[in-house]
Amino acid sequence: MLTSEKLNQYLSNVLPKSNILTGLEERYAYSQDALNTPEIKNIAGAVVFVENIEQIQAVVKLAAKHKIPVVCRGAGTNVVGACIPENNGIILNFSKMNKILEINPANMTARVQAGVVVGDLQKEVEKFGLCYPPDPSNLAVSTIGGSIAQASAGAKAFKYGSTKDYVLDLTVVMADGSILKTGSSTIKNATGYNLSTLFVGSEGTLGIVVEATLKLIPKPETRIVMMSYFDSVDASIQAVNSIIEHKITPATIDFMDRNAIQTVEDFKGAGLLTNKECALIIEVDGLACAVDYQKNIIEKILVNYGAAEIQISGSDDEYDRIWSARRASMAACTRLKPNVTTDDLVVPRENLAKLVSGVREICEKYGLTVCMVGHVGDGSVHPQIPIDYNDAEEYSRFKRAKSEIYKLTAKLGGLLSGEHGIGMLKREAIGLVINETALDYMRQIKKTFDPENILNPYKIF
Amino acid sequence: MLTSEKLNQYLSNVLPKSNILTGLEERYAYSQDALNTPEIKNIAGAVVFVENIEQIQAVVKLAAKHKIPVVCRGAGTNVVGACIPENNGIILNFSKMNKILEINPANMTARVQAGVVVGDLQKEVEKFGLCYPPDPSNLAVSTIGGSIAQASAGAKAFKYGSTKDYVLDLTVVMADGSILKTGSSTIKNATGYNLSTLFVGSEGTLGIVVEATLKLIPKPETRIVMMSYFDSVDASIQAVNSIIEHKITPATIDFMDRNAIQTVEDFKGAGLLTNKECALIIEVDGLACAVDYQKNIIEKILVNYGAAEIQISGSDDEYDRIWSARRASMAACTRLKPNVTTDDLVVPRENLAKLVSGVREICEKYGLTVCMVGHVGDGSVHPQIPIDYNDAEEYSRFKRAKSEIYKLTAKLGGLLSGEHGIGMLKREAIGLVINETALDYMRQIKKTFDPENILNPYKIF
Repeated sequence: MLTSEKLNQYLSNVLPKSNILTGLEERYAYSQDALNTPEIKNIAGAVVFVENIEQIQAVVKLAAKHKIPVVCRGAGTNVVGACIPENNGIILNFSKMNKILEINPANMTARVQAGVVVGDLQKEVEKFGLCYPPDPSNLAVSTIGGSIAQASAGAKAFKYGSTKDYVLDLTVVMADGSILKTGSSTIKNATGYNLSTLFVGSEGTLGIVVEATLKLIPKPETRIVMMSYFDSVDASIQAVNSIIEHKITPATIDFMDRNAIQTVEDFKGAGLLTNKECALIIEVDGLACAVDYQKNIIEKILVNYGAAEIQISGSDDEYDRIWSARRASMAACTRLKPNVTTDDLVVPRENLAKLVSGVREICEKYGLTVCMVGHVGDGSVHPQIPIDYNDAEEYSRFKRAKSEIYKLTAKLGGLLSGEHGIGMLKREAIGLVINETALDYMRQIKKTFDPENILNPYKIF
Repeated sequence: MLTSEKLNQYLSNVLPKSNILTGLEERYAYSQDALNTPEIKNIAGAVVFVENIEQIQAVVKLAAKHKIPVVCRGAGTNVVGACIPENNGIILNFSKMNKILEINPANMTARVQAGVVVGDLQKEVEKFGLCYPPDPSNLAVSTIGGSIAQASAGAKAFKYGSTKDYVLDLTVVMADGSILKTGSSTIKNATGYNLSTLFVGSEGTLGIVVEATLKLIPKPETRIVMMSYFDSVDASIQAVNSIIEHKITPATIDFMDRNAIQTVEDFKGAGLLTNKECALIIEVDGLACAVDYQKNIIEKILVNYGAAEIQISGSDDEYDRIWSARRASMAACTRLKPNVTTDDLVVPRENLAKLVSGVREICEKYGLTVCMVGHVGDGSVHPQIPIDYNDAEEYSRFKRAKSEIYKLTAKLGGLLSGEHGIGMLKREAIGLVINETALDYMRQIKKTFDPENILNPYKIF
């Protein structure tokens, strides 16, 4: 294996010196992501800031020659260890490749570099009356490249789908340095295999996405958000089913469980009802007339199913205030213990109540607090468990609880991730939910695309 | 190579005799699809009607042992030769595997066998207030398996997307007879590579899709369709752009060119305005209040852009009458010449007017009539060219025109198919629009999944 000194010397032949971080502390800092578990102490051999496709090709060719892993990094916000380097690999930092190359209103497309921040893109396309719907909760910092790598979605997936539904064309640097293009700027494509969606969720293991052409939609005319409280998770899900039966498709049907409500209230004093079992946060968007009509129906349904208090946003400020309660849950959990973990489980919607109660029972059994938020419409739950990594005994209980939670998810017909990816965190558990034949073909695809195993190795499976 | 007699003898060991067609005429009939070009005279070695997964596995294992191609057939409605057998292959006819296995309103999913007819599924899910949006024009006979194989879409793709957006999980018999499952009944999936969409559009070349779990949506409360006429294609596209700028997302924005209008009018006497350059057929669906609001805005925009006559459906009968004019264009073309060909081009929407005028110029240059219908919202055009296959000179002009049309499509940043697939028809032209690196990886994926090249060989590339 090359020493870090030698590696950095080779890199300085293909990149400006100012684009290479060589210090141990710097290499350590860029080797972490938001997974942040105690047992992973990997450190990158080199950290480079890439500025264009040619530089990426040069680095990949160097890595291929010396069989060194190459790991792409957007904002490092993923929570599954998807951009933690193995074997002293090279971190490709995309923060300098953050240009929106084109917004095309006639085609309703945007062409962007992989390092563009999702929230920045959303703001820019809105100036043209357009919308890029995928809205991961970290969109103020997370990047399009990261969204593509992790197949990210967000609160609005119920109505608008996830990242995969918006990727029309990708420019990808392959393991041998060649350039692959997956599609074109057309909305439909039945021309050969769908390589675009093969890269979405592949966590940088098949190629390095450097540019993306994304589909946009007209920006909804208006939106409101409604928050309400229930005495049982079941009642809240029945209310959701009734809303959908009324031919209403909310943009978002999010929920917070009792612990999440209490924790946020302790943190922010937002006036939440802490004696309730769960809260629903329902957003409706579209034409003003339709939003108003749906609001009235939803309100009646919520009352029918016993909702205790219904707040409806009448202004942008109120809209932001309601959402800020839901979005604060992870930050609020940091008050409870030194570390907060989150997870991402998804089940068929009919099994969501069972998943929520099952996760709570497992956490109680292992003496852990769990705050659950999620997307009811998608059957997706994020259990946030505050712990102290320095407490080895607690950490051991936590690991056993997680193992049971994954088994429960599998038993309920679910998957180990709906929108975060698998990364290092869950790769050993993936066999619980993906059949052996499928895993075998995934491994074969990996080998076909990356025979030397240099592209973000040892992730997913 | 096995004789047909020997092959049928082997097949009768794994299938009931009554499921095997051995006669020459029968094998010939099931070897054609709706491409129907004169130069392809392939004939299947055997035609079998499969009833369950075990039978399919048995046939595939037999085919693998003797290296005989296996070609799946739904209704045979594809127009690109996607289910024409090579090398005396075995046709797997799915017409007996046409069961809807489950409609699950709580999850909003349906689980179906591959041979289920799209229109049958749509009718069944509507009984539960649900909707399966992809609506290929042949949905009264075409199957879900065929839709998945060809990545089919239809008129409503602008608002609702295409088949790939509705496939949650597939059960697939692989080339070695093993069973692969691609996902689960969850709406979101970030758990490993997206194998579901890899199979969508793969035309049976990677595996045999036997079962699909499909996402459903709430059935729109109401719908109307509006037909209007313009003096230029440009004006009609400007009107469409203005509609979208007004934050309206019609379900459908279809069009018919002058020749298509004239041909349908001659065929049906439907009262169409034959002195106009093109017609727009715009469908709006959703909540009644929103449909009404959008209708009024669209009407004003159409008038602003010079629409000559605007018909709006006020009843189901009127709705069907307007759509029947658009949908009759292929049948109407059969009046002009003994044979009708269709095609499927897609470009970024900003280039649609150029594609339409360019296709017309090319056809005029080669002395061919062309009727164009398409989906403006998606930038997608179906040029229908009536010809006489027995006129060798005309057929030669037709082939040269097609070659120029494909080059024009590539020049306009388009693709050779948005919703029909590539099949045999366009496999030699695919390099015009897919870069060599991408084609190379597609071929490697094919080889990984089907090393002996027995699954519908020589399609796509």
